[in-house]
Amino acid sequence: MSNVLGNNLKITVFGESHGPCIGITIDGISAGVKVDDTFIKECLSKRRPSTSYETKRVEQDNYSIVSGVFEGYTTGTPLTIIIPNENTKSSDYSELKISPRPGHADYVANVKYAGYQDYRGGGHFSGRITAGIVAGGAIVLDALEKIGVKIGSHIVSVKDVKDRKFSNPSEIDVINKKEFPVFDNQEAIENVMKEAAEEGDSVGGVIETMIAGLPVGVGSPMFDSLEASISYAMFAIGGIKGVEFGEGFNFANLKGSEANDAFEIDNKKIVTKTNHNGGVNGGISNGMPVTFNVVVKPTPSISKEQDTVNMLANKNEKLVIKGRHDPAIIRRVNIVIRCMTAFVVADALIARYGEDVLRIGF
Amino acid sequence: MSNVLGNNLKITVFGESHGPCIGITIDGISAGVKVDDTFIKECLSKRRPSTSYETKRVEQDNYSIVSGVFEGYTTGTPLTIIIPNENTKSSDYSELKISPRPGHADYVANVKYAGYQDYRGGGHFSGRITAGIVAGGAIVLDALEKIGVKIGSHIVSVKDVKDRKFSNPSEIDVINKKEFPVFDNQEAIENVMKEAAEEGDSVGGVIETMIAGLPVGVGSPMFDSLEASISYAMFAIGGIKGVEFGEGFNFANLKGSEANDAFEIDNKKIVTKTNHNGGVNGGISNGMPVTFNVVVKPTPSISKEQDTVNMLANKNEKLVIKGRHDPAIIRRVNIVIRCMTAFVVADALIARYGEDVLRIGF
Amino acid sequence: MSNVLGNNLKITVFGESHGPCIGITIDGISAGVKVDDTFIKECLSKRRPSTSYETKRVEQDNYSIVSGVFEGYTTGTPLTIIIPNENTKSSDYSELKISPRPGHADYVANVKYAGYQDYRGGGHFSGRITAGIVAGGAIVLDALEKIGVKIGSHIVSVKDVKDRKFSNPSEIDVINKKEFPVFDNQEAIENVMKEAAEEGDSVGGVIETMIAGLPVGVGSPMFDSLEASISYAMFAIGGIKGVEFGEGFNFANLKGSEANDAFEIDNKKIVTKTNHNGGVNGGISNGMPVTFNVVVKPTPSISKEQDTVNMLANKNEKLVIKGRHDPAIIRRVNIVIRCMTAFVVADALIARYGEDVLRIGF
Amino acid sequence: MSNVLGNNLKITVFGESHGPCIGITIDGISAGVKVDDTFIKECLSKRRPSTSYETKRVEQDNYSIVSGVFEGYTTGTPLTIIIPNENTKSSDYSELKISPRPGHADYVANVKYAGYQDYRGGGHFSGRITAGIVAGGAIVLDALEKIGVKIGSHIVSVKDVKDRKFSNPSEIDVINKKEFPVFDNQEAIENVMKEAAEEGDSVGGVIETMIAGLPVGVGSPMFDSLEASISYAMFAIGGIKGVEFGEGFNFANLKGSEANDAFEIDNKKIVTKTNHNGGVNGGISNGMPVTFNVVVKPTPSISKEQDTVNMLANKNEKLVIKGRHDPAIIRRVNIVIRCMTAFVVADALIARYGEDVLRIGF
Repeated sequence: MSNVLGNNLKITVFGESHGPCIGITIDGISAGVKVDDTFIKECLSKRRPSTSYETKRVEQDNYSIVSGVFEGYTTGTPLTIIIPNENTKSSDYSELKISPRPGHADYVANVKYAGYQDYRGGGHFSGRITAGIVAGGAIVLDALEKIGVKIGSHIVSVKDVKDRKFSNPSEIDVINKKEFPVFDNQEAIENVMKEAAEEGDSVGGVIETMIAGLPVGVGSPMFDSLEASISYAMFAIGGIKGVEFGEGFNFANLKGSEANDAFEIDNKKIVTKTNHNGGVNGGISNGMPVTFNVVVKPTPSISKEQDTVNMLANKNEKLVIKGRHDPAIIRRVNIVIRCMTAFVVADALIARYGEDVLRIGF
Repeated sequence: MSNVLGNNLKITVFGESHGPCIGITIDGISAGVKVDDTFIKECLSKRRPSTSYETKRVEQDNYSIVSGVFEGYTTGTPLTIIIPNENTKSSDYSELKISPRPGHADYVANVKYAGYQDYRGGGHFSGRITAGIVAGGAIVLDALEKIGVKIGSHIVSVKDVKDRKFSNPSEIDVINKKEFPVFDNQEAIENVMKEAAEEGDSVGGVIETMIAGLPVGVGSPMFDSLEASISYAMFAIGGIKGVEFGEGFNFANLKGSEANDAFEIDNKKIVTKTNHNGGVNGGISNGMPVTFNVVVKPTPSISKEQDTVNMLANKNEKLVIKGRHDPAIIRRVNIVIRCMTAFVVADALIARYGEDVLRIGF
Repeated sequence: MSNVLGNNLKITVFGESHGPCIGITIDGISAGVKVDDTFIKECLSKRRPSTSYETKRVEQDNYSIVSGVFEGYTTGTPLTIIIPNENTKSSDYSELKISPRPGHADYVANVKYAGYQDYRGGGHFSGRITAGIVAGGAIVLDALEKIGVKIGSHIVSVKDVKDRKFSNPSEIDVINKKEFPVFDNQEAIENVMKEAAEEGDSVGGVIETMIAGLPVGVGSPMFDSLEASISYAMFAIGGIKGVEFGEGFNFANLKGSEANDAFEIDNKKIVTKTNHNGGVNGGISNGMPVTFNVVVKPTPSISKEQDTVNMLANKNEKLVIKGRHDPAIIRRVNIVIRCMTAFVVADALIARYGEDVLRIGF
Repeated sequence: MSNVLGNNLKITVFGESHGPCIGITIDGISAGVKVDDTFIKECLSKRRPSTSYETKRVEQDNYSIVSGVFEGYTTGTPLTIIIPNENTKSSDYSELKISPRPGHADYVANVKYAGYQDYRGGGHFSGRITAGIVAGGAIVLDALEKIGVKIGSHIVSVKDVKDRKFSNPSEIDVINKKEFPVFDNQEAIENVMKEAAEEGDSVGGVIETMIAGLPVGVGSPMFDSLEASISYAMFAIGGIKGVEFGEGFNFANLKGSEANDAFEIDNKKIVTKTNHNGGVNGGISNGMPVTFNVVVKPTPSISKEQDTVNMLANKNEKLVIKGRHDPAIIRRVNIVIRCMTAFVVADALIARYGEDVLRIGF
């Protein structure tokens, strides 16, 4: 229910920030997909904190694939990856049982789980669990690329500093090679993050994603629309508070004549002259690149003093969050978005073409 | 898969624009919920076109509840509503088999369904199917109100004309009574719509929704987060291209200290001083009003000439869409958003409190 | 939840015995499947009571396909069939609100639905709802046959009178042509039923089904095993109280050396010498015919006096069920089993081969 | 899809016979359920081979609960148990890539997974994966007992040696305490198993299960019927080839007057005089004990020579299965049935009473 995603390619995530490990099980991945550990490690490193303005809690992510891979290829049966948590400090969080951190799930978890929740480091709500999304998603991302579908993501804005948007699919390879996921303006964007770190505060931002190479006809009308499926998965990632496709909220400023994507023949293929709709009509892919934005809210954990309550005594009190946290997670979230998208895209392709599509293509 | 929504309270929609009827089946609604036909009719009338700038195709929506209601109350077994289509003109759409309308699903459906799709009036993709969402959703909306949960929606912007946002739950009753779903600025907003109609063009806009009275603890972390569930349902509605919660995309402009909602005790209850997070933390309701925006793109059907292709001959051609269509659907979509939200909220309440919650409350 | 079946090809059933109509929606059926009304009518007639020992309530089943079919072919979008209920007599059932019939769901529904259930004619629990299973299943059955998969069902025993079992796939066409679904012994079997009718009692029996032509590799290990999926659907049919595959419960009498199906090459294909396992290994089809039995319990509605309780007064009392009912429903259930099986098989084929398989085959 | 079960309480199983570990994730278990490691170990020991006629591969099952439990109680978030595989001998299975064992999934997996399957020890199809079902199910079994619902299972027949059936709920505690799960006739039953072992053959049998204490109204009509849900889960267990409820296939021998369960008042409660229907009417519990049988086929792995094919050379050949295997698994399967049943029952209770039912009862 809450930790399972997908219809044909299903993923189940498990684990907690301060438990021994986190993990993911992928069921329904085509047999015969090559598993490239180098690529998995590369994706995991993109998620790992590495800068001065990110958390000091660094994990090695020494993952193990404990099922579903044999002699280097997927078997078609459930594939499970387990990643140990090594760098845990439980003592940092002992007050959370009583004083909920603003913007976090401490309070709601205390009510929903009647006080039985694991409050340390956010427990199940921690971003740590996304390491499994990345390790598993990397395998699917790789398979998709081999059958002609590429996914790229980058930071498109942090506060008032912007990066240029994707203009065409060839830029996907460009952005995926980048150490820092922007086309331009890396320094200006990082400065905003460092500033927030120095203030003991935090910033968020917007991530743009492009999916290229998806054939026409993937997705369904209504509840299994590509947009519904993608957004559903995006909101499962901590900190995501909005999703928009194509022009997104800018559609509110356009007229129909400005928003419509006219059709034309290009090189004997039907394409659209523009792509305001982000590659999706009526929930179904139209062959143009699928583009969407997600907004990441500023990390709730900041060093500044905040107002909260004492849940036991039921009175107001002040809170200063100690411990290690992320002033700006958006660079690290970028690869999570990309990998999560891979799961949704694969699921939709399998629905249309059958369970072997990731091996044999379409 | 594509026409079923929900986990405990499941809805299935069926029907086509030019078929004999459309309908909806609701399974999992608590037994003993009073069915108020006056309220259902009221909601349906809000969806019905009525202004000069809306489509001339007006349906009476003489619905029949064919199962699941007995002696005025829900039985707990599947509840089906059937609404006849009366005002169909098939001749208006005969070119669509060959010339896809920009922004519509004609092209993708022709590929996905190998030419077997019902192309008349958009077939299954037509907004007509939302009449079932409204008729069925009205029953759930009504039940929710009786157990203390209210949902209100209004137009918050059309092009550069804005309406003020919800500031507190008492405004829900106010907005729900309005004939035209805005707090202020009705005239200015309608003028933008009339202008578009006169130009043979169309406009979209943004709808804001507030859910008040939801207790703490509803929803789950990760994939069954309230935000994931709501957005998934929203994107199933034709024309929706973005969803954002609380501050939404504005989070990109805020620092953590500005975005966080500090906790405080108010009248012995734990509340937040602000509500930037729109009432949801970690996917779970925190007791504050849940607020979200959806963007409706401008209706693709416009009278102006557009560029398209001839799918048979595989060459470019011009298209003028005849027939009846909506220059501005946002007033009509408003009640659809409100009703769809009711389904999601009810589903989440049932998950937490069990199948009788809509009758006995929480 | 309770009225939806399937993963890729989903069916939703709705309606009640004494409501205006019953119906079914099929979502996920491949586009381009020819719809043969003659065949649908033929299947429905097999479900219709026609003998002296069956219920006198005869419906015409004048079904309407209200969506999902266009110019004689499926569109790929949700297909809905509605069948009016014509021959309803509500007055026959007025005591059921207070005195539950043994073997029926009157008591449990009164508790589960807190007294709000529609008690007339069993309401939602009535076998009437299977008319939709047959009308919709007929379309899928037909499509499956065209791509090489045949399904046949017959009565294999009623009390101590037996019919011979399927011995090979060529018998499927033979049994499907039969008016009365047995290979031999029709008279003896009908005599048992007539005897029960005369006594004001009822009998049940066992139905055997064979699926031939299923390619190797359909179904999944564990929870989406072909056996799990088929049994899940079978138990949804009223009166079914057991399902067994291949040797079924007779496996308890065999040793492994007697139960195993040895492999051999036959005409360059891998087959098994025997088929004790009923064509399924580890939840996956092995190319041999899939065979299974279901047991139908004797119809609970009998004319003889029975002991029950008065739920209002909470005391014991006697009950004589008036009204029209079925002393032996097994002949009529046969086509329901066959059609329900078609849904499950189609769903599994789509999972393996993709959404177009019912049109283009495998 | 294939490794996920449940609607509200979801279980995901993963792992392979010869991988580093197997595991299970339970999502949706109520927070605040006490976790009793002694009881988990006790259940696991019942699954462990211990007799002369069972496999020599003995695992210690040193499980770790890696998430979802904190300070001895469930947190309400996903609970994952990982169990290492210690006693693996891969060399025993090297021929399976080419020569499929009759009755096993070797052949179908080779086709379905295009040769990429992990063939060692049955890979994902191995019974080893049921260790996770038992470890996780033990937690749920324990919680159910504390809220008044008990589940007991025992061997009711092996070949022609029978054990007496459950006659009333008080026998559940009796049978659960037994080392060998039978009421009587242990020696005769074990003799049949030893005989099979000595012959290098195998036997199966029938397991009867009783669920007592389930309140009236649990389960739904049609596809979420208790019987549908239980059978679906049963068939996911390797070797299960039939499920029957109450009288099961014996219903075919009864008349309605013999099969119906008359109602009566007993101690002010409504009960049935008999329980032919096994506690379920119309898919919903009626307050009487739920009883059902499953048949376990004889273990396919036998020492005797068998006929098979060479899949590479496409010709017939002989096969002698070396390695360690189970001549009679039924004693070990008994606890698996019991634990799997616990999952289904808990899922159905949560659907009716909400997510906290396992902690607070009904």
